Amino acid sequence: MTDIQTTRIVLAARPEGRPKPSDFRTETQALKAPQDGQVLLETLYLSLDPYMRGRMNEGESYAPPMALGDVMVGGTVSRVVESRYPNLKAGDVVLSAAGWQTHAVVDGKGLRKLDPDAAPPSTALHVLGMTGFTAYSGLLTIGQPKEGETVVVAAASGPVGSMVGQIARIRGARVVGIAGGADKCAYVVDELGFDAAVDHRAPDFAKQLAQACPDGIDVYFENVGGPVWDAVQPLLNLYARIPVCGLVAHYNDKDVAEGPDRLPAMMGTVLKKSLTIRGFIMSELMEEQMPAFLKDVTGWIAEGRVRWREDMVEGLENAPDAFIGLLEGKNFGKVVVKVADL
Amino acid sequence: MTDIQTTRIVLAARPEGRPKPSDFRTETQALKAPQDGQVLLETLYLSLDPYMRGRMNEGESYAPPMALGDVMVGGTVSRVVESRYPNLKAGDVVLSAAGWQTHAVVDGKGLRKLDPDAAPPSTALHVLGMTGFTAYSGLLTIGQPKEGETVVVAAASGPVGSMVGQIARIRGARVVGIAGGADKCAYVVDELGFDAAVDHRAPDFAKQLAQACPDGIDVYFENVGGPVWDAVQPLLNLYARIPVCGLVAHYNDKDVAEGPDRLPAMMGTVLKKSLTIRGFIMSELMEEQMPAFLKDVTGWIAEGRVRWREDMVEGLENAPDAFIGLLEGKNFGKVVVKVADL
Repeated sequence: MTDIQTTRIVLAARPEGRPKPSDFRTETQALKAPQDGQVLLETLYLSLDPYMRGRMNEGESYAPPMALGDVMVGGTVSRVVESRYPNLKAGDVVLSAAGWQTHAVVDGKGLRKLDPDAAPPSTALHVLGMTGFTAYSGLLTIGQPKEGETVVVAAASGPVGSMVGQIARIRGARVVGIAGGADKCAYVVDELGFDAAVDHRAPDFAKQLAQACPDGIDVYFENVGGPVWDAVQPLLNLYARIPVCGLVAHYNDKDVAEGPDRLPAMMGTVLKKSLTIRGFIMSELMEEQMPAFLKDVTGWIAEGRVRWREDMVEGLENAPDAFIGLLEGKNFGKVVVKVADL
Repeated sequence: MTDIQTTRIVLAARPEGRPKPSDFRTETQALKAPQDGQVLLETLYLSLDPYMRGRMNEGESYAPPMALGDVMVGGTVSRVVESRYPNLKAGDVVLSAAGWQTHAVVDGKGLRKLDPDAAPPSTALHVLGMTGFTAYSGLLTIGQPKEGETVVVAAASGPVGSMVGQIARIRGARVVGIAGGADKCAYVVDELGFDAAVDHRAPDFAKQLAQACPDGIDVYFENVGGPVWDAVQPLLNLYARIPVCGLVAHYNDKDVAEGPDRLPAMMGTVLKKSLTIRGFIMSELMEEQMPAFLKDVTGWIAEGRVRWREDMVEGLENAPDAFIGLLEGKNFGKVVVKVADL
């Protein structure tokens, strides 16, 4: 089990605005054999997510930035090839954070062993993983939708948005999704069971959203940022809750945004409507809510109440292009890179 | 008890931006004698508060707008002249909302009888009234300062800010006030016992604020809006709480604000710092917290732990000018109009 090599994609340059292929570099590197407590993993699936764009920047964020030359971060579903960790054996499938590479040697502690019979292992990267947990914990802890209330979520066909809507429906709320294009809108209503969907590319988007929310908006799950907010703001009801878990529209922002300054109007609405705006990252809620999340969502999957769509990319070498496309909204469903066969 | 007249100040015109004297008109009107359940009141003290500016506008706010010709709204300390309400008698001093006028006939129900021995009656318009309750409920419910945390409040010498700071100190927080001018800053530290004060008119205000908050900011009590936010935002700690109870800097805003657009940066900070921003008006917390507030603050007054400063204006006829000055920050302490002798 020596001479194991990993093919990996590293951060070659910090992107200015939108990342380009030359910001990534593919390398091959030898791996040391696992020590006591460690395992050698082979990556099966790699998750691509918008937060990775923030980690490519130099500045402060909610997680430390990557250094130039670091392997790109990312959650993976991996197979144990060799184990020197007591609770895992070769052949086990685990949830890891091995990043954009084919193999990795990591500590066995902290890996979540997956049950391929309960759900397809790649779901650990979305509905049963970080994005599902982000939706579940943010919606239920901060959004707190009540039966009959109206929940609006943007990027509704995406991994977080699709779960936010489905969980809100299960809790008895009326759910309106915002998505880009007729295909995604149809998917959100027909496949995911949302009550309505509105295309944010429509010229009369704000009017359509108002019509889809005749009783106003009680929960707006903010996971995109950008101009959608301007259509949502006037519809918010008194005491509306706004969990903020991502601002993909701004991840590429470099400079100060052009005017007009929308902050005073926004703070005015916060005051007039007694709004709650709460930023969160799922890690702060993990310890408290992960067990309930896994139990609830695994059950909902078994009952057929939660559906998902994967946008499967074949081959690690295609990860950079897929990631650039993800930031532009080109994907349809959760982007998963298939690195090796299960 | 017939032929009672009230001299009152009504909304003559809706201000565009900053109110001017001609937006107000003084009238004299006959009052009908009180019916069963009603009392005739004589106004002793009238409270002037920034929220009144919002009520002069036509548009939607958290309370319905006044109509043209309506008496200006406002809290008052009044003496009962004639009572047809069982629980009140002539000579009683009550907290009412009689507005900008010398006399009023109102329902006895809902009036709070004041005890002139426990505290001077005019305090029912500030530390033991709406502004004190706003500070108390917003700070403790939303801000939730913990011992040793840093609390920052703007308009620190004003009626809400001064109470926010004093209550936060009582709860063991380090308190930094922001005020306009050396006099107010000295007052906040020397008289109110804040740990530090920073003059927002200083050219290096942001730098001074950073120096006054070496451990960052855990609670920012937002009651002004405007450029102070830009200095506060970079200092906010992870999980900081921001109760928003007033935006006096924007009450005169007519149009869309000039750029740059500060909203994307603000939402980015909400996300990176897991901030909680919560607008509130005191009425939503009143039922739950008013008894605790009255008990706590009356006790703190008796112990000398809460201090205040009144900016007393003599005569109802001077209310419009005093109100215009209040919106410009010209007052020093809580603005109270003395309408008649106690």
